[in-house]
Parts: sequence; C-alpha cells; structure tokens
Amino acid sequence: MATDDPALSLLAEAPQGGDEPRRDGDRLDDENRLKSDFVRRVRDALDEGERDQVYDLVEPLHPADIADLFELLDADERPRLASAITDLMSADVIAELNDHVREQLVEDLPAEDIAEIAEQLETDDAVAMLEDLDEADQQAVLAELDPEDRAAIESALAYPEESAGRLMSRDFIAVPEHMTVGQLIDYLREDMRLATEFWEVFIVDQRHHPVGSCALSWILRAPRPVALADVMKRDQTLIPVTMDQEEVALRFQKYALISAAVVDEAGRLVGQITVDDVVHIIQEEAGEDALLLSGAGDGDINEPIHLTIRTRLTWLVVNLGTAIIASSVVGLFQGAIARFALLAVLMPIVSGMGGNAGTQTLAVVVRALATNQLTESNTLRMIWREFRIALANGLSLGLLIGLAVATIFGNPLLGAVIGSAMVINNLMAGCAGIAVPVVLDRLKIDPAVSSAVFVTMATDVMGFFSFLGLAVLAGLA
Amino acid sequence: MATDDPALSLLAEAPQGGDEPRRDGDRLDDENRLKSDFVRRVRDALDEGERDQVYDLVEPLHPADIADLFELLDADERPRLASAITDLMSADVIAELNDHVREQLVEDLPAEDIAEIAEQLETDDAVAMLEDLDEADQQAVLAELDPEDRAAIESALAYPEESAGRLMSRDFIAVPEHMTVGQLIDYLREDMRLATEFWEVFIVDQRHHPVGSCALSWILRAPRPVALADVMKRDQTLIPVTMDQEEVALRFQKYALISAAVVDEAGRLVGQITVDDVVHIIQEEAGEDALLLSGAGDGDINEPIHLTIRTRLTWLVVNLGTAIIASSVVGLFQGAIARFALLAVLMPIVSGMGGNAGTQTLAVVVRALATNQLTESNTLRMIWREFRIALANGLSLGLLIGLAVATIFGNPLLGAVIGSAMVINNLMAGCAGIAVPVVLDRLKIDPAVSSAVFVTMATDVMGFFSFLGLAVLAGLA
Repeated sequence: MATDDPALSLLAEAPQGGDEPRRDGDRLDDENRLKSDFVRRVRDALDEGERDQVYDLVEPLHPADIADLFELLDADERPRLASAITDLMSADVIAELNDHVREQLVEDLPAEDIAEIAEQLETDDAVAMLEDLDEADQQAVLAELDPEDRAAIESALAYPEESAGRLMSRDFIAVPEHMTVGQLIDYLREDMRLATEFWEVFIVDQRHHPVGSCALSWILRAPRPVALADVMKRDQTLIPVTMDQEEVALRFQKYALISAAVVDEAGRLVGQITVDDVVHIIQEEAGEDALLLSGAGDGDINEPIHLTIRTRLTWLVVNLGTAIIASSVVGLFQGAIARFALLAVLMPIVSGMGGNAGTQTLAVVVRALATNQLTESNTLRMIWREFRIALANGLSLGLLIGLAVATIFGNPLLGAVIGSAMVINNLMAGCAGIAVPVVLDRLKIDPAVSSAVFVTMATDVMGFFSFLGLAVLAGLA
Repeated sequence: MATDDPALSLLAEAPQGGDEPRRDGDRLDDENRLKSDFVRRVRDALDEGERDQVYDLVEPLHPADIADLFELLDADERPRLASAITDLMSADVIAELNDHVREQLVEDLPAEDIAEIAEQLETDDAVAMLEDLDEADQQAVLAELDPEDRAAIESALAYPEESAGRLMSRDFIAVPEHMTVGQLIDYLREDMRLATEFWEVFIVDQRHHPVGSCALSWILRAPRPVALADVMKRDQTLIPVTMDQEEVALRFQKYALISAAVVDEAGRLVGQITVDDVVHIIQEEAGEDALLLSGAGDGDINEPIHLTIRTRLTWLVVNLGTAIIASSVVGLFQGAIARFALLAVLMPIVSGMGGNAGTQTLAVVVRALATNQLTESNTLRMIWREFRIALANGLSLGLLIGLAVATIFGNPLLGAVIGSAMVINNLMAGCAGIAVPVVLDRLKIDPAVSSAVFVTMATDVMGFFSFLGLAVLAGLA
C-alpha cells in the first residue's frame, strides 16, 4: 500500500468484476461444488501442457473455488496447476487450502516464492502456512521476509499451536477513549498503513488495556462531536492470547461475536480475532465428534495415507483387545453352545442391539459435553433421562424379539430369556453410554476419543453374559 | 426509537456496564460454563420463593448465560425463573434459548407477553419464536403486534422452514450507486429508523437489484466525495430466499462472509443474513453427523423424552431387522457350531472388527460429503484410497488374530481361517463404508441418516459368512 491518495488505494484493492456479477453456472453445480466436467477440462488441459488454456479456465474462479480445485486434483497434478496459474495463487487461495494440501504445495515451492506469498498474507494465515514447515525451511522463509513481517510471524509462532495467539491478526484499530467520532474517521482516512479489514474499533486506555469496543455501524450513525467513550460498549469478551482455539470458537458462538480483542497476560491488547477465522474451527470442532468416536482420527481425506492407516489401525488394535475379552465371555459357555447351538445364532442379536443403543446415548452425551450443555448442574437429570429411555426401548425391543423367538422356535422359555437379556443389555448400554463419557470428561480426557471402546466392551460383555447366563440358569442347555 | 437526537438514541442503546468490565469468576468456570454452585444458589432461592434474591443473582449475567441457566434448570423451575426476572427476559435471552426450552416457555406465557417480547426481537428471532406455536396461538400473538412487525413476520413465515427467508433480517441498508461516501454517512446519521446492526451496505439499482456491497471499514476509510460505485465490491455472493439454511451456512463458510444479501425470485434485494445467525447452523449441521450416524436423531438433550424414545426406537427396530438377517447367516452353520463350539466364541471378533473398520470409513466419507470435499471428480481416488487402507489394516489385524488363535488354541488351520476372514471382512468394511454413503448421496438421500444400518449389516453378514464358511471349507467342523 504505497499510494498516497486513499481513494485510489481503496480502488486498487477492490476487485473490479465488470458490471455483471460472475456467472458460475458452467463451473459450479447447484450445491456450489465444482462440476466434474469442469475439473475434467482442467485436467485434460494440464495433461496436454496447455498452460494458457488452464489459466483461462481457472481465472474466473473465486479463490475459495481455486482452493477446492487443488483439493480435487491428484497430488501430482497440484504443483503443475500451481505453476500454470502463479499470479492467481493469491493469499486467499492459500488461506482456503486444506492443511495437508497446503503443506505438500509449500514443500514443493522454493523459499523465496513462499516468502513472497507470506508477505501478502495476514499474520494468522502466514503462520498457518509456515507452522508446518520444518525448522530449517521455516528459517529460510523467515530470512526472506521484511523485518516487520518477520517479527510478527516469529512472535505468533512463539504461542502454543491452536492457541488464540496463532489465530489472531495484529492488524486492528485501537484508539483512546477521549477521541471523538469525527477524529476517528479523520484518523482512519489519513493513515494508510492501517488495517483495511475490521468490523469493530477497540478503545484502549494509556496502558493499552481495552476498555470498550465499538461496532462500525455505531460510529457511522453517530454525529462527529460525540466521544467514543459515549458510544462504545464497555462489556466486551476479551480473549486471552493463550486460550485454546476450540474455547475461542465456543465464545464467538455463545456471544454471537463478529470480532474480539485478544489480550496478553498483562491485559494489554495485542491482536484481534474475526469471526471468519473462527468459522472453520467451529465447523471442524463440531464435525470431529463423529470421526473421533469412530476412531478415524481427524478423518481428513487429504491426509497422507500412511498417517491415516496408523491412526485407524491403532484404534482397531485396541478394539481387537476388547473383542477378545468379550469373546472370552462366550468361551465360558462353550459347553452350553455345543449342546444347544441356537444360542450362538441368537447371541449376536443381544450384543449388537446393546452396541447400537450404547452408541446412540454416547453420541448424544459427547455432543452435549462438547457444546457445554451438559454440566455438573444437570448431570443427574440426564442420567435419569437416559435411564428412562433405555428402559422404554429395552422393554419394547425385548418384547419384540422375545415374542418373535418364542413363536419362530416354538420355545417360550427361550423367548423369555432373550427378551430379558435384551432389557438388561439396553440398561447397560444407557448407563455406560452416559457414565463413561461423563467420567472421562471429569478426568479431563476427551470423551469423543476414548469412550466408544469402553461402551462397546460393556455392551458386548453384558450382551453375551446376560443371554448365555440366563439360558443356562433357565436350564435351556 | 423515538428520540430525535441520534447521539442520545445511540447512548440509550449502548449497554453501560460501569467503568469495570463484568467479573464472572464466581459465576462461570474456566470453560465459561455456569458453575454448579451458582446454579444451586439460584435453585435454592427459587425454592424458597426469594424472587429478589433470584433477581440479584441473575442480573449480572450475560443474556447468553441467562439462556444457559434456563437450560440447566429442571422444566418446572423454568417458568418460575422467568416470572422472577421478567425485565431481564430480553430479546437476546430468547434468541439464545434452545428451541425446545423456548417452545415450552412460550407455551407457558400469555399471548400479550409473547407479543411484547416479539416486538423487541429482530424478524428472524421473532419468527424462530413464533414458528413453533400452533396456528391459533400464532394468530393470537400476531394480532397483538403492530401492523408493520406483523407484516414482516407473516411474510417470513410464508417461506419454507429452514430456508434463507426464515433466517434473514429485513433491517438492512440499501442505497443507490451514485451516492457518495459523504452522502451515505449523512443519510445514516439522519434517519433514525434505519437498522443499527449491519456490517456491510448494499448498493442497488433502480429495480432494487443488488449491484455491489461495501464493508463499513471501506466506507470509513474513503474520503467523502468518492462515489460508492468506486469503493464497492461488485462480486458478491447472493443468497436466494428459498435456499436451505445448510447451503447458506456452507456459502458463508466457504467465502468467509460476514453478511450477505438475500434476493427473491426476481433478483430483488429482500433481506440480509449476518454471520452470527449462521454460526449456530454451521455448528449444528457439522455436529449432527455423529448423532445421525448413531440413529439418535437431532440428539437434543432438551427434546421432550417421548420424541427421543420414538426416534431412537425406530432406528433400533430397523437394526433389529438387520441383526436378525445377520444371525440367520449363523443359523446356516448351526451344525458346524454344535460340532466345534469354539467357532461361536471367535465369530463375534470377525464381525465386530469389520463393524469398527466400516464405521471409520463411513464417518470419514459422510463428513467429506457433507463438507463438499468428496465430489464426482475425486470419488474414484477416494475409493482406491479406502481400498488400500482396508487392505493394509485387514492384513495387519488378520496376521495378529491369526497368530494369536493359532498359538493359543494350538490350531494353525483355525488361525489361518480367522486371519483370512478378517482380511475379507475388512475389505468388505472399506467397500461398503464408501459405496453406501456415496450411492445414497447420488440418490439425494442423506447418507448420515441411513448409511450405518447397511454398512453394519454388510460387515455382520460377511463376518459370519466368511469365518464360518471358511471353517467348514477347511474341514474344521
């Protein structure tokens, strides 16, 4: 931003798309995904080395769609695309790229190219690009940066991963309390080095502690002579610089924030976080439960395959252990099974249904814990609620399977046994489904990661034990 | 907003919290949840009928925390709390309340009270409050509203549920292209009926079609004489009024939007959606996968219990059907099991591990489909990826269990049989885990809702069939 005339400088930054808005009908489908035949055309052009054609195809895309295009291509096509569209590789494209895809691309680019991209990026995006590089490559890139950017990025990298310090931008507007609306507008118009992306202005005292914030719409609607102290909101949510990004995302969501001030240990304003940086995190954190519960790690389809195999295999091996424990319960009843093999036919129904019911409770409880809806204050009520659900569903399913078995096999006693086992195992499922995640949460262990293995073991063991045990007690075998 | 002096009017709206920011240490824990002993103090005061004490306790809370408090209390305590703190029941509290809790509260309040609250709310929040009421109650409330509010709410209710039309606010700023920055600021300062919550100004042509948008920071930084046409961004994401809210949320996320213009079928600007209205949806939609996959419906812990039981039981009954199908496969091998009961002991390991592996793949694929990361363009690559993962994990697990069984039972043939069955079932899990959700997605059926039942059936059937079948082929029984 070297222009002296602010209007010109603003003009230069505003994308000028002509009079007609972009028409994306031939590139995007009705769910706003890139059409497969558009991707095929890009692929064909890449294969034929037609770089100009590639450029013409990609040029009209929004940066977020260019990022999507990279993700849809095969790993070996990505660097070829990047080299065909170098000047379209804007900061926005880099910022929107999937972490793994970005990491791979960054590894394939020379340090000075990365530095050139990093300089256009906001600090938070530059940090996201550099944090994955190994120490030596990071130093090589930092050396290419101008001192001011380097200092900003180095200080961000000093904060823990996934903390507010990594996420925040250092470009924000902070002004003193006694300033008037008019003075603020003049200041914003005159100083061209100021941030261009901001939604609130922060008001600070002499020690640079935030004392209030003011949405831009309030400033635009107030007369020039009014002091900022009289329009600002004093109650604001301050984000400590070391706060975990998941916690930051929960605050933004709970208090419907657009931007928030980040403060250091001494309470000084050091950065701002805006909601667009947080939306991805909200989405990722909310979506990861299903993946963690299943033991699929972060479940990113762009992750290198050996990491995926390792993550999933670890979980499967743990589950193999619990499956062996459950099967050893069946082993106790080998004699009974040899005498009456029908027991082996029916036993998976009891254990499997317990597993299903346990997974339901588990999914609900893990979600409620993650969104802070389940706390000490309502845990007892929730346990009672899940108990009643388990009882109602256990009785219904037990009656259903009991009648079916009694009728099909003409054996009312067998029906009574499997029906009772079903009720018992559903209660086990409900209790384990709530107790396991709640206890893990109290122990500060992420319940989404480790609950399922305990709950499945509980329902498998209880399923086999209650059904086979009752069958033996009833004299069926 | 009847004041003539805009500064005074703004002052009246800005919350004045005194010079010190709120200190929440004794009410909120370190994860920003209400402390259980604070909730207990409110409960005790409610039980003793100490309404003033309840008021004093609740008064310093942020509206979002008051909403949380309602959710943490038992259903019968909520109306008593509401009546003790009537004048704290602001629009923000109502907007933040869980849908089920709000519905219950709204049912307990007389129509004129609801109308009084509805009048303070933005259209979208008022609609959220009224849409759950039955027709007669809705009419009673609408009759109490002033004509302008009633018209806005009625027209919003005419749009489909969960559409952009329900979500949007009708309070937005739309100005003509030829206006200058200075004229816009004067207009905003003078007209007191205008919206106070906005982050962008929309620029429209004579037919009221949006032609561009302008972030407030751009306006504040531009000199007065500059025409809006010269600072506005022409490329903007327009939201059709009938678009589903999930799609709206994906657009906001993909393009990092703060607010967006909503247009009707004729392309006219009819409303705006701001990111704070969308953040809840992003979070809900992303989090619902785990719940839907488990068959727990929307998994809301505040839902009336009979609805929860019905949702979960429906899913369990469907699963009971597939469990019976799987167990009938075991039935084919009853003779073999009677001769060699150890087969019944080991078979749940094969089926169970297949189920675990299938769930992993399923969780990853459902997530990738939901976030538009898996499209036609990369489906083949993903199938190949999942196949290799399934093969690698199947071989590892097969080797592990094969060696264990061969050693423990001194039966190498049995080890070879269970090892091979494990490889086969892992491949089945990988194939079903990706094929089922992809096919359902193509058929426009939500893969999160219905995939798991098919995948589990596939891995159960193949687990039993491959293990018992191979055992018979090998002459083990």
